[in-house]
Amino acid sequence: MKGYVQVYTGNGKGKTTASLGLIMRALGHDFKVYVGQFMKGTPKGEIKILKKLGVSVERFGGENFIFKPEQVTVLDRKIAKEGYKRVEKILLSKKYDLIILDEINVSTFFNLITPEEILHLIDIKPKETELILTGRYVPKEVIERADLVTEMKEIKHYYYDGVMTRKGIER
Amino acid sequence: MKGYVQVYTGNGKGKTTASLGLIMRALGHDFKVYVGQFMKGTPKGEIKILKKLGVSVERFGGENFIFKPEQVTVLDRKIAKEGYKRVEKILLSKKYDLIILDEINVSTFFNLITPEEILHLIDIKPKETELILTGRYVPKEVIERADLVTEMKEIKHYYYDGVMTRKGIER
Repeated sequence: MKGYVQVYTGNGKGKTTASLGLIMRALGHDFKVYVGQFMKGTPKGEIKILKKLGVSVERFGGENFIFKPEQVTVLDRKIAKEGYKRVEKILLSKKYDLIILDEINVSTFFNLITPEEILHLIDIKPKETELILTGRYVPKEVIERADLVTEMKEIKHYYYDGVMTRKGIER
Repeated sequence: MKGYVQVYTGNGKGKTTASLGLIMRALGHDFKVYVGQFMKGTPKGEIKILKKLGVSVERFGGENFIFKPEQVTVLDRKIAKEGYKRVEKILLSKKYDLIILDEINVSTFFNLITPEEILHLIDIKPKETELILTGRYVPKEVIERADLVTEMKEIKHYYYDGVMTRKGIER
């Protein structure tokens, strides 16, 4: 079965969760799944369940959430590049049926990973592997190469009542 | 913690999977989760994993996939109404932290459930419960009442090479 390249982008909610949902479906058919989370240092609620389900999860992000390109540190760059190298190995290993690179699109916006590097990852993707790339700001070269692109568009959003994220929902 | 009403709609991929991903996050915090799947008679790959994770899942759909309103049978209507009654009970039970009503929006398009009935379900939602409504064709009254609405917009889609769905990815 041919594996495709899927992109979930846009300013709306549901990009990372859509990729997590794909994992559930894939595991139902005993697929091998790998998740590489870029830009995220702190584990979220899903990690516990992913581990319980035997999914390999790795995080390539610093402690602090990056809001602006000016905030990017040398360490952030180092971690992202290490993540990129790691993911390259994972793809070349041909061990996984489904590979999710969460927030990798965003990392191009912060110049942590280049669009060409993402294209290289697509190039080395095993034919049968499904590759999911999530995050805002997906470069247009990546859209051109992807098989499926969904834009999550924010139509309406609640205010957080002073809290950034809610346990069990956003984290 | 206040629970919100979230809607995932639009013609793009990722609506149901986004709701499944929310489950993973919620379970990571030991939330109680209920999933009611409208319009779907045949179980997909995710069911196996949801059951393994202790999530209550029920399906309120006939055997055949409905493409056009003309195809709707008396049985489809009966199953949808029973589903609606069941979900009403589930909401009133106050047992669940996260309730997902998958494809319930679509069921209004096929006149299986009315927009007013969905509004009623929102009305009886326990304050702390997060309610997720997925599917295309969400009625505008529901958008008005929802706290968060994301439109999944199809930007690019692969052709299925003659197959409707792929095991482990679409089903």
